[in-house]
Amino acid sequence: MTNKRKIINDPVYGFLTIEDDLIFDVLQHPYFQRQRHIKQLGLTYLVYPGAVHNRFSHMLGALNLMCRAIDVLKMKGVQMTHDEELGVKLAILLHDIGHGPFSHTSEFVLVNVHHEVFSSMFMRRLNEQFGGRLETAIAIFEDTYPKRYLHQLVSGQLDMDRLDYLSRDSFYSGVSEGIVGTERIINMLNVRNDELVVDEKGVYSIEKFIISRRLMYWQVYMHKTVIAADSMLLSVLRRARNLVEQGVRVEGPQPLMEFLGNRYTKEDFERDRSLLDKFAMIDDTDVTTAIKGWMLHDDFLLRTLATNLINRRLPAIREGEQPFDGDYLETQKSRTQLLYAIDEADADYFVTTGRLQNHAYDFNDREIKVLFKTGEVKSISEASDQLDRHFLEKSVTKYYITFPKELK
Amino acid sequence: MTNKRKIINDPVYGFLTIEDDLIFDVLQHPYFQRQRHIKQLGLTYLVYPGAVHNRFSHMLGALNLMCRAIDVLKMKGVQMTHDEELGVKLAILLHDIGHGPFSHTSEFVLVNVHHEVFSSMFMRRLNEQFGGRLETAIAIFEDTYPKRYLHQLVSGQLDMDRLDYLSRDSFYSGVSEGIVGTERIINMLNVRNDELVVDEKGVYSIEKFIISRRLMYWQVYMHKTVIAADSMLLSVLRRARNLVEQGVRVEGPQPLMEFLGNRYTKEDFERDRSLLDKFAMIDDTDVTTAIKGWMLHDDFLLRTLATNLINRRLPAIREGEQPFDGDYLETQKSRTQLLYAIDEADADYFVTTGRLQNHAYDFNDREIKVLFKTGEVKSISEASDQLDRHFLEKSVTKYYITFPKELK
Amino acid sequence: MTNKRKIINDPVYGFLTIEDDLIFDVLQHPYFQRQRHIKQLGLTYLVYPGAVHNRFSHMLGALNLMCRAIDVLKMKGVQMTHDEELGVKLAILLHDIGHGPFSHTSEFVLVNVHHEVFSSMFMRRLNEQFGGRLETAIAIFEDTYPKRYLHQLVSGQLDMDRLDYLSRDSFYSGVSEGIVGTERIINMLNVRNDELVVDEKGVYSIEKFIISRRLMYWQVYMHKTVIAADSMLLSVLRRARNLVEQGVRVEGPQPLMEFLGNRYTKEDFERDRSLLDKFAMIDDTDVTTAIKGWMLHDDFLLRTLATNLINRRLPAIREGEQPFDGDYLETQKSRTQLLYAIDEADADYFVTTGRLQNHAYDFNDREIKVLFKTGEVKSISEASDQLDRHFLEKSVTKYYITFPKELK
Amino acid sequence: MTNKRKIINDPVYGFLTIEDDLIFDVLQHPYFQRQRHIKQLGLTYLVYPGAVHNRFSHMLGALNLMCRAIDVLKMKGVQMTHDEELGVKLAILLHDIGHGPFSHTSEFVLVNVHHEVFSSMFMRRLNEQFGGRLETAIAIFEDTYPKRYLHQLVSGQLDMDRLDYLSRDSFYSGVSEGIVGTERIINMLNVRNDELVVDEKGVYSIEKFIISRRLMYWQVYMHKTVIAADSMLLSVLRRARNLVEQGVRVEGPQPLMEFLGNRYTKEDFERDRSLLDKFAMIDDTDVTTAIKGWMLHDDFLLRTLATNLINRRLPAIREGEQPFDGDYLETQKSRTQLLYAIDEADADYFVTTGRLQNHAYDFNDREIKVLFKTGEVKSISEASDQLDRHFLEKSVTKYYITFPKELK
Repeated sequence: MTNKRKIINDPVYGFLTIEDDLIFDVLQHPYFQRQRHIKQLGLTYLVYPGAVHNRFSHMLGALNLMCRAIDVLKMKGVQMTHDEELGVKLAILLHDIGHGPFSHTSEFVLVNVHHEVFSSMFMRRLNEQFGGRLETAIAIFEDTYPKRYLHQLVSGQLDMDRLDYLSRDSFYSGVSEGIVGTERIINMLNVRNDELVVDEKGVYSIEKFIISRRLMYWQVYMHKTVIAADSMLLSVLRRARNLVEQGVRVEGPQPLMEFLGNRYTKEDFERDRSLLDKFAMIDDTDVTTAIKGWMLHDDFLLRTLATNLINRRLPAIREGEQPFDGDYLETQKSRTQLLYAIDEADADYFVTTGRLQNHAYDFNDREIKVLFKTGEVKSISEASDQLDRHFLEKSVTKYYITFPKELK
Repeated sequence: MTNKRKIINDPVYGFLTIEDDLIFDVLQHPYFQRQRHIKQLGLTYLVYPGAVHNRFSHMLGALNLMCRAIDVLKMKGVQMTHDEELGVKLAILLHDIGHGPFSHTSEFVLVNVHHEVFSSMFMRRLNEQFGGRLETAIAIFEDTYPKRYLHQLVSGQLDMDRLDYLSRDSFYSGVSEGIVGTERIINMLNVRNDELVVDEKGVYSIEKFIISRRLMYWQVYMHKTVIAADSMLLSVLRRARNLVEQGVRVEGPQPLMEFLGNRYTKEDFERDRSLLDKFAMIDDTDVTTAIKGWMLHDDFLLRTLATNLINRRLPAIREGEQPFDGDYLETQKSRTQLLYAIDEADADYFVTTGRLQNHAYDFNDREIKVLFKTGEVKSISEASDQLDRHFLEKSVTKYYITFPKELK
Repeated sequence: MTNKRKIINDPVYGFLTIEDDLIFDVLQHPYFQRQRHIKQLGLTYLVYPGAVHNRFSHMLGALNLMCRAIDVLKMKGVQMTHDEELGVKLAILLHDIGHGPFSHTSEFVLVNVHHEVFSSMFMRRLNEQFGGRLETAIAIFEDTYPKRYLHQLVSGQLDMDRLDYLSRDSFYSGVSEGIVGTERIINMLNVRNDELVVDEKGVYSIEKFIISRRLMYWQVYMHKTVIAADSMLLSVLRRARNLVEQGVRVEGPQPLMEFLGNRYTKEDFERDRSLLDKFAMIDDTDVTTAIKGWMLHDDFLLRTLATNLINRRLPAIREGEQPFDGDYLETQKSRTQLLYAIDEADADYFVTTGRLQNHAYDFNDREIKVLFKTGEVKSISEASDQLDRHFLEKSVTKYYITFPKELK
Repeated sequence: MTNKRKIINDPVYGFLTIEDDLIFDVLQHPYFQRQRHIKQLGLTYLVYPGAVHNRFSHMLGALNLMCRAIDVLKMKGVQMTHDEELGVKLAILLHDIGHGPFSHTSEFVLVNVHHEVFSSMFMRRLNEQFGGRLETAIAIFEDTYPKRYLHQLVSGQLDMDRLDYLSRDSFYSGVSEGIVGTERIINMLNVRNDELVVDEKGVYSIEKFIISRRLMYWQVYMHKTVIAADSMLLSVLRRARNLVEQGVRVEGPQPLMEFLGNRYTKEDFERDRSLLDKFAMIDDTDVTTAIKGWMLHDDFLLRTLATNLINRRLPAIREGEQPFDGDYLETQKSRTQLLYAIDEADADYFVTTGRLQNHAYDFNDREIKVLFKTGEVKSISEASDQLDRHFLEKSVTKYYITFPKELK
């Protein structure tokens, strides 16, 4: 009786103890279990072979950090009702439940809906099934709950989501650049005037956190080869959709094909409740299985793109400070036409361009605040000796072009 | 020119440097890339959510340890030609290339062939493609090469395979019981009379290694819930095959369905070369996608088994020191018939029994040998104060029965 | 105001939060601060250079684990008053406060009193200074408190002392053999019939703990070279005491010389309260400084022993299964007499013998108990498949002899 | 015969293998062994209790990294003779051998000589004893050797010294901010035009390294409480010297007292060879033992300072952006005079001021260079998107004042 709590082993932080039955029941729900098959970092494993972890682990990890943060805040005298505590835990647990196959990579390709919108939809659906017990969680997640620091713990410049993903992605990829003093930062959290703040002693750790995030951005999340792989995945899916729209038979798991054969919008999901359950049926495995099947398709483009992706024959990629347009782009397209004996429009599947941008820190977002021993609260850009506005405002923009490796 | 070497980041040991072009080319081969989609520990991630690592990482990790072991042996004066060095590296790199979906779990279900036989087949096929340059690797792998210690490094009681998987499975599952002093053991390796031996100073580390392996066995590899999940996966596949054989339409990725629709033997693979390439097309994603599709199948049994597995509604499992047969088994079957309103034969899909056995150490296998400073060589059972024959010979046997959770 | 708690950074477990003022005040007391200068593992750093950690860290670490254990037990419904909670924390914090220079090594050489007796004395002295607030702690420490599981947490086969020192000594020495699933074991703790027990699921972790402890015993604590160094340290101190007793002038820090010049007993400490404060003045630095000074002493023996120890010219050591007596001992003594041109009695400073013994587990001590899901409680020797009585009862005894390296 | 190599266990990187006899003999020399008693971070352990590691470990660690760096450079085709390889290893092994008690803290207090000057002196003395075999090492250390990249590996903006101390200090203090991708950086090292450079791919790791160093600077090396403790240590030693100069009897280990009783200069050491051997006799233990003894001295100032330091009753410290002079300083001095009933000059022992400054990066020093795939070499300030000159040139200066805690 006394020992109903569930312990889950996590390689990043050790044990997570689940003490609340509702949390446990949500964890068991198919909507949540499905995230076991959605990789946290999409195709990044093609560069960092160890990075095959999934959203399921990330969401549990973020819950783990939230539990610790709540303990720290309560010890510091921050008032929180049991309902709020449960709400903020459920909010972080479910914050990413809306992700589809390969997380960010294929967002907007299968369905033109942001993953956070899907997260809200899933949370509302769960709320129905659990008799309205997720109301507070939804309010916190959607930032309509009065105590705003609760939302900041879930989504802000220093939320449990970011703290977990930096540590976790670093752990699984083996890139030590992302190691952040998670425990120290959480110990330094506090609340002042309904805002999440960091105790003065935590300034250095926050600096480290901002820098680490930026380093992970370029070294892992926007790694050139990952960008190249992503572009190829998008081309495969685009080509498949194109063929379906042309009436060509393309096989694959049924729910995936339904989304490729239609361009559902948010409004469609609101109108037809069954669509969300269909969306819940697709994950990374469907996409991978489909693409493997397409390696034998009659269409040259689909077959070539699929084969190259599965066998990790990725496009070449070049990065620069200016957009790759005009001559260079045209040249690569012409050469691609010749290489594959395809027409101009089809070269777009092989030659793609894009833009990558990173701010170390986002001033539009609410700033990270520091609480001094004197009681004063300052923004991190004022509190930090080194990370002044000049540094924090600086953004890095890169442009890239991908093209067949044979043209390199 | 001077810098053609490839560096791969591994979260377990750090960097692996690939210096040989042949190794690099083998790594790039679709037969090898395919292992990115085969989980090292099958369904274990249903218990340890972090344990989603694949065979690809394990094989690279084992190569990493082999490189270190070779360095140590060479420093100790062990003679090795360049061809042997390359051979033993390729042998360890490819030792698991024959694994199919979910590694051990579904071995013998899809095809009645041991994974090591498949590894040999794939190696021979690669050897053809790379102009006979894998001859030595094959000889070492198949233990026909004269210097026998090379085979022991690949497959023995203290090989690089075991050293890697204990560390790796421990790292990803978060179960510290498997942590082994890998670096220390490798530093203690030596060769005497053409046999792999361990320097005297390494005795304690070997004891730890034997114990850790046993602990991992029961705590991870044979974890009750993993066994229960495995039994359900086997039931799903069995049911699907059964329906196909009855002529019922069961959908799924084409190559997977071909293997479910036939019972190919080793001889079939030898007769029809194309079968191996078909086998190379299937991995975990096909099985998972297929089972997800079967959640809507008309057949009650297939649908129920598939739905339960995907949604992690696993069977109950009971373990004991005696086989579960006779009355207990019959009772559970009868109750299952009632529960699902199915006939007796079909209850076998839900009520399964089996036997688990573990030796800490295998005396039939060649023993681990210890080299004393005096030059004397003894077996570990003589050299260890604590792990005497009594301990090492002891085997643990458990019997289990699984049945629907509702009957618990 | 709300944030008076103190956070201490520990490289082994991360942060320790001190929330109670009494604990903080005890920490600040000179009796406790003094342990910063007493190495946890004496001269072990001569073999494992990183193992320079002190008792201060160990005692804080044990407190850290105790805090976690209390949280787990309370969550499982074990009743504990605030006074008991504080008492058991203070008891573990102070359990080793009685250690003198080089911990175990020089115990009984400077003073003929067991370190636990000193711990009791220090605790009683602190109790006076803190107005009787350590009464419960003392009762728990001395095992006179009614709830006996509290004492077991402080001193038993599975106490927080052992859990911390295995992890800590492993961390600092770099010997991975000591890594134990501390967090898992603590999560599995429970209380039944006023006895500390381990939940059934924790059996494998307990097996690992027992084995790890044994491996650390031989690989670190009783490492041959450490034994050799210890024997030399004892010889230096014995020689110094001998000279003092002969009236020869031997210099060194005053309090140390007082203890070398007398053979105080427990009764002396009870009679003369000031002796304990004098004892509190000596630590590793006094002994090291004194020995460095003796490198220039007129006495050949003292000078030689001191110089060899400081410059790490340690004796040779031989181990065997039989005592080294009779001929072999006599031969080594004669050779030593010749080597140094000293008389027979003095050869005893260079040729020493001894006996090392280790039980994996102590049946005389209260056994580790396992709580099964059925409610049944069994001893670990019954609960473990592998660590049966045969294994657990087995003890290993080694005999050693040390002699000048030149005679090797 | 074949196995004469020595393996040393290091908790930070694992095993270090010593293969060269000369290196082994240098390690065994009393000048080197002495560094076991000199803490790497002085009094920092009063804030981070785990940070009790010594120079001995650091120097071994730096050697370990040097061995790896050499392997990487040789693999990339950098030419190096055996003599150069041995030289650069010995140079890094001995780079800190000149440190005295508490490393940097008491530098210039006991003797007015920079520790690098002492390192040169010790290396020359060893060179005499080892028959001139350290010539190349000395030339590399003193930057007179033609191949300048060798010196850069020992002392530069990206040398093995810094790489080791960041990792090691981070490991022992538990401050994760210092974790640096050591292995990655070393893998990226290269040589171009006789200069140490970093391959393009290593830019992010270098950014991380520069940032981590700055974070460790303020969070550990210049931690307020450490500065306060240091100032108290200096005051104790100053007071002791003052009393000795006044002819007051102050006891302590003989060699320490000789240095306190004289103000030897570099010239004195050059004139009197025996001084260096006397200096080699003192380490942390002498200073600590002496101060403990002074807790009972007749002089109020010495007694008070000594007692406060040993019992960790450290001064209060205040930091600011302007020097603490004029009124504030005078007020604190007056209050101190009243507090202790001492005269104005003596208040200087309790009220101290100072200035702390940190550049993330030093432009006066040779810049870190990056080698692009195109063959181009740029400085890091040009190569890094984020760490531009504005960031790198920025220096942080803080002023502090310490005063008795009672006045806070």
